[in-house]
Amino acid sequence: MENLVLISAKEQQIRIEKIKAAMLQQGIEAALISSNASLYYLTGRVYSGFALILAGADAPIYFVKRPVHLLADTAISIRKPEGIPGELQVRGVELPQTVGLELGRLSYNMAERLAKAIGRAPADLSAAMAMARSCKTPFEIEKMRMSGLKQERVYRQVPRMYEPGMSDYELQIEIERTSRLEGCLGQFRVQGEDMELFMGNVLAGDNADAPSPYDFAMGGAGMDPSLPVGANGTPIRPGMSVMVDVNGNYTGYMTDMTRTFSLGSIDERARYAHQVSIDICHALQQMGAPGVEAKALYEKAEQMAAEAGLADYFMGHRQHAGFVGHGVGIEINELPVIAPRSRDILAEGNAIALEPKFVIPGTGAVGIENTYIVTESGMTCITNAPEDLIALDK
Amino acid sequence: MENLVLISAKEQQIRIEKIKAAMLQQGIEAALISSNASLYYLTGRVYSGFALILAGADAPIYFVKRPVHLLADTAISIRKPEGIPGELQVRGVELPQTVGLELGRLSYNMAERLAKAIGRAPADLSAAMAMARSCKTPFEIEKMRMSGLKQERVYRQVPRMYEPGMSDYELQIEIERTSRLEGCLGQFRVQGEDMELFMGNVLAGDNADAPSPYDFAMGGAGMDPSLPVGANGTPIRPGMSVMVDVNGNYTGYMTDMTRTFSLGSIDERARYAHQVSIDICHALQQMGAPGVEAKALYEKAEQMAAEAGLADYFMGHRQHAGFVGHGVGIEINELPVIAPRSRDILAEGNAIALEPKFVIPGTGAVGIENTYIVTESGMTCITNAPEDLIALDK
Repeated sequence: MENLVLISAKEQQIRIEKIKAAMLQQGIEAALISSNASLYYLTGRVYSGFALILAGADAPIYFVKRPVHLLADTAISIRKPEGIPGELQVRGVELPQTVGLELGRLSYNMAERLAKAIGRAPADLSAAMAMARSCKTPFEIEKMRMSGLKQERVYRQVPRMYEPGMSDYELQIEIERTSRLEGCLGQFRVQGEDMELFMGNVLAGDNADAPSPYDFAMGGAGMDPSLPVGANGTPIRPGMSVMVDVNGNYTGYMTDMTRTFSLGSIDERARYAHQVSIDICHALQQMGAPGVEAKALYEKAEQMAAEAGLADYFMGHRQHAGFVGHGVGIEINELPVIAPRSRDILAEGNAIALEPKFVIPGTGAVGIENTYIVTESGMTCITNAPEDLIALDK
Repeated sequence: MENLVLISAKEQQIRIEKIKAAMLQQGIEAALISSNASLYYLTGRVYSGFALILAGADAPIYFVKRPVHLLADTAISIRKPEGIPGELQVRGVELPQTVGLELGRLSYNMAERLAKAIGRAPADLSAAMAMARSCKTPFEIEKMRMSGLKQERVYRQVPRMYEPGMSDYELQIEIERTSRLEGCLGQFRVQGEDMELFMGNVLAGDNADAPSPYDFAMGGAGMDPSLPVGANGTPIRPGMSVMVDVNGNYTGYMTDMTRTFSLGSIDERARYAHQVSIDICHALQQMGAPGVEAKALYEKAEQMAAEAGLADYFMGHRQHAGFVGHGVGIEINELPVIAPRSRDILAEGNAIALEPKFVIPGTGAVGIENTYIVTESGMTCITNAPEDLIALDK
């Protein structure tokens, strides 16, 4: 029998207060948490079951389906959600009227079943959880820094992984292997409907311009129509750029970093666009601070791209992505969203990936992406591999 | 502009007829398909959007959000689900009263939004789609055979990947790399709530007995509490078994295969249990045919395990899995389910993974798993790597 909660009581208290503050703002009196990402946020571990946070109570109540050995004094064993009301009654706990469920994540069938089990109409907890998780605690930021350091170590080794004649796919496999040897957990957590991607994107040449089904910054045709995104087997040839944007989940918290590599002599406009991407990142980093509107960062990026004469290539060419950055943490797409119609306001503790990228036909994708922490005094970069275009053939 | 549909008209017709037959059985007059797995089934590709099948019409109507280049004559471009009714009206298409949505997959919020957009109460399409997909077409079976051949090739190379001193995790990384070089797509499609697993399981020694959050045949503690399943860094030592059950998605269709490897001299009871697993597979293969009850296969497996004196170790030891096999195809958990309370009846075209496994404390997991196709005359194995316990140290 081990502890269910793997974070310190103090750390958990901070997180619960964030969740309660967000619940209050949304008029939710109790939160029935069920998703892997949110259970991990609350407890420091993924398990199968639920956690109930009552606005008026100090400690959460944990309901565990599996693993069955997690039946510490602090947890209640249940086989089905229908077991929840009986267990609460036995303990003299009364459910309030408005119980939030993760309606943006639970399937319709499971949400209906849960709501019926607890005898309440479904209220949506998704926005409150996203809000709570958007400002990371110092402990979470340390986890992200650690992911950043490991991801950096992988990216620095990319030129050593390259061998003449390789395809984008073959290079990606070596990057995956090195990532895993450095401790990458592999799991790539995306929230939302059906966004599938395996271990990230390595895009060589014009494959970067193949539009994908998802609102990712870049596309790629993929190796098979069942997974139409990313590397497509393009042989890496002189004059091509190779954009590497792979999984940074080393600690349960992800960093998001992109670097661009090149083979042989690269078109002047592509080199220029790469520098503009670096300049945009630096400019946005200067602007970013608590209280700044997320959309102002987007507008600045778009304006700089336009001033550089690169509007047509900004965030894609045949298909454009609708953002230039996004929150990141347990999942790759958290708040705030750095997009034209975003209403988000930057706040201390936000972890934000900025990825002003360009697709230059005939060369490929260029640009960088870094993950930044919003601090009281500005934005700190936690993905510090060299930013310049890096030659694969030294 | 390319074709949206990547399978032949004839192949698609067979699949549509299966879907319509299942819709009829469930009283559904129109199906609004939205998940990656189901869109792939219908069209041979994953895209972002919807497909509408009307019981009374021949051809589906395709609504595409992304990729934007997929705007062939056969597809309708939409930005949001709210655009669907207007597009139908323009084309003179009237929606019937009962429109099935994938309520077992769609989030509650998205299902509500879709239902509101089309002005219908949500009806559940999940069971009909699962039913349609459970009997594979000859073309789908060919895709599965191809996955099986490639997966076999990887498993045969495992002893060559092993190096003395390796941990389970390090061996898994080499298996992952070899799998990817053979064309493994990586994506591991699981249907249902939040079942996370990266590229499969390599379990050495007693880590096989660590209970996981999921109803998988085997557990493993994993490398991190954010992903508590699979390899945990156990150094592979003499006397240990190493069970390899990794991703077989090479074609969009997965095969599921497990083989057990050993280092040094293995406990007699573990060797015996491994042979019992092989015997169970062969016995179930003999029994399996169209019309046979799925639960009869489970009962036979359980009975053989008990007769061998191995009931305590069957399908886990500290935590037991509640099945001995499952359908497999585009996803790892399809119909039929080979479990004690299953009401499924085997039918021609079913693809079924059988995995009677044992966990022997002090040694680890032993046993095999194969994927079989149910044919008119019985079950054909499509994962034919050698079944015996294989020595890593030749």
